[in-house]
Amino acid sequence: MGYTRYRYEDLERLCSDVFQKFGYSLDDSQSITDVLLTSDLFGIESHGIQRLILYYSGIKIGRIKVNARMKIINETSLSAVVDAQDSMGQIVAKECMKIAIEKAKKLGVGIVIVRNSNHYGIAGYYARMAAMEGLIGISMTNTEALVIPTYGKRAMLGTNPIAISMPAQPIPFLLDMSTSVVTRGKTEVYEKNGKPLPLGWAVDRNGLDCDDAKELSDCICNKICGGLLPLGGSTEKFGGHKGFGLSLAVELFTSILSCGYTSDQVRKVTNIDRVCHAFFAIDYKMFGDKKEIEDKLSEYLQKLRDSDKADGVSRIFTHGEKEMEAYNDRKEKGIPMNDATMKEIKDICDYFGLSTSDYLKDII
Amino acid sequence: MGYTRYRYEDLERLCSDVFQKFGYSLDDSQSITDVLLTSDLFGIESHGIQRLILYYSGIKIGRIKVNARMKIINETSLSAVVDAQDSMGQIVAKECMKIAIEKAKKLGVGIVIVRNSNHYGIAGYYARMAAMEGLIGISMTNTEALVIPTYGKRAMLGTNPIAISMPAQPIPFLLDMSTSVVTRGKTEVYEKNGKPLPLGWAVDRNGLDCDDAKELSDCICNKICGGLLPLGGSTEKFGGHKGFGLSLAVELFTSILSCGYTSDQVRKVTNIDRVCHAFFAIDYKMFGDKKEIEDKLSEYLQKLRDSDKADGVSRIFTHGEKEMEAYNDRKEKGIPMNDATMKEIKDICDYFGLSTSDYLKDII
Repeated sequence: MGYTRYRYEDLERLCSDVFQKFGYSLDDSQSITDVLLTSDLFGIESHGIQRLILYYSGIKIGRIKVNARMKIINETSLSAVVDAQDSMGQIVAKECMKIAIEKAKKLGVGIVIVRNSNHYGIAGYYARMAAMEGLIGISMTNTEALVIPTYGKRAMLGTNPIAISMPAQPIPFLLDMSTSVVTRGKTEVYEKNGKPLPLGWAVDRNGLDCDDAKELSDCICNKICGGLLPLGGSTEKFGGHKGFGLSLAVELFTSILSCGYTSDQVRKVTNIDRVCHAFFAIDYKMFGDKKEIEDKLSEYLQKLRDSDKADGVSRIFTHGEKEMEAYNDRKEKGIPMNDATMKEIKDICDYFGLSTSDYLKDII
Repeated sequence: MGYTRYRYEDLERLCSDVFQKFGYSLDDSQSITDVLLTSDLFGIESHGIQRLILYYSGIKIGRIKVNARMKIINETSLSAVVDAQDSMGQIVAKECMKIAIEKAKKLGVGIVIVRNSNHYGIAGYYARMAAMEGLIGISMTNTEALVIPTYGKRAMLGTNPIAISMPAQPIPFLLDMSTSVVTRGKTEVYEKNGKPLPLGWAVDRNGLDCDDAKELSDCICNKICGGLLPLGGSTEKFGGHKGFGLSLAVELFTSILSCGYTSDQVRKVTNIDRVCHAFFAIDYKMFGDKKEIEDKLSEYLQKLRDSDKADGVSRIFTHGEKEMEAYNDRKEKGIPMNDATMKEIKDICDYFGLSTSDYLKDII
């Protein structure tokens, strides 16, 4: 597969116009586009504009309801519980993190829990929203069940990512991690390339080590046993029960607190997603001088980056560094787009009477 | 090493009397004893009464100051920042979780961050305190640096445990996990038994895979390079950067927010520990009907336990189950105590003019 770089601004205009063709307002379209393209700028292709076709098919089959509007069903000065009513995950998630941020700015803490939502893109986007407002941000979501509980063989848990962000110099701390060893996107790349999976990523329908990416794919698509392993692997020896526990903690803060669908119910009860999210914003001024706290974090992150490297390694990255370097590179030199993805986008554009050549000039 | 079971009540009376000999009040002694013996009841020997000798040596060298009293240095309706002033970790931690619980009962959320404290035992004890009051509890602590950042070779991070608890039937959810693959206690057992470490637990002074428990011990004791790996292992292939990130998140909520010592400074700046803790309590009534939320959690945990088992496996445990089973067994049949530990305890008792035979009747 080849890659061609396109200007960020051109992709932004195109993506926003496509979402308007899907039926979204200009505001909502720009809002969704920003989440998708931030993922591409961060170098996380799996959650970027390449998902456009998936969102479109979600809209067509009624999984994502374009005209639905989220509803606050429960609110206190510190918290809200939101029913997304099957609307677009990105729109709901941004709105909910904004509510959490407003509450945190007033009282120190804001927590918003969401049920009946759709795929919201990268968890880190929303944690970063809070950090950009000078707060600690936390974002979590459950997902379709893809992950096996320790000693199980049926996927009962989502890849359930956790993102945490806080301002620091020169680069904010931004942890954005699934609670599984790897995500589905990674095993799909192995499948496409016909390569065996590293042992320790997945188990087969018997709950035993699986290096066959195609078999894993069959297990997942046909919802038979088999799936991805939680962070720490298949047994307690390397801490698989810890990844399992973290995934459960995400479930607790998303589906349990919202009384929504747990991961094992997502896309199973009906073809509808109904995933659940959680957003936390914390204003750390309640703990002391904000500048002093930020300096303390910046200094520690720098110490970690400067610490002794393993033999043969030249650099230690702290969380968010790789993303910011990719971001700066791509803002300047364009975003490398997979040719197959561009073909899909061109087809959608044709269908809606948009001409990609009106938007895009490839720059490499 | 042999094990002998002793009655919980007998060990409790003995341990409490020993702490009074160390200079603590009856109340404080009982309070510390409860944390230590809960660990033994849970089957977590490493953090139980066997640490008595370590606490005593900590007191003797001035690391733990018996007469110090914690000081609240900053307080809001939702939060407090506490300077433990080198007092006993367990006393401070219980007091601080109580403050968090009180705040959560009033306003929904309570957060207490602590600096300049000492080893506080099992993180889960404090998370469970909140769950016993019908709240979600979270407890974290940084520790002496034992863990390597991904691609590093110098221990810069603690084993930094996270504990999360919430009421559920028949057994509360209780996750209590270090953010490293394993804790130091586990590698010490391998060292004692002269067994090689599984590859993937630790790295040597060059940052390369280490299966030599004695070499690892030298690295740690002499504070040269080498140490334990973060959850997920040595590289990004199995998610080592995620364990690194979780460890950093614990650092953020403990040492960074309190402007205390980061793990790399603990026991390094001086011989003093000065570890930092964080305690969160959340009253989930702000999200809806508490009974409905608890039922939802209980039902999901049961579904996980009932889900298909991997070939050759008969049971899936959810977090807290093993601990509660050990607890019930040991409350009834006594706590199995290592003979070497009992010898140490006897020596301390002799020193203070206490006779263990006045307290203990072995029951097996």
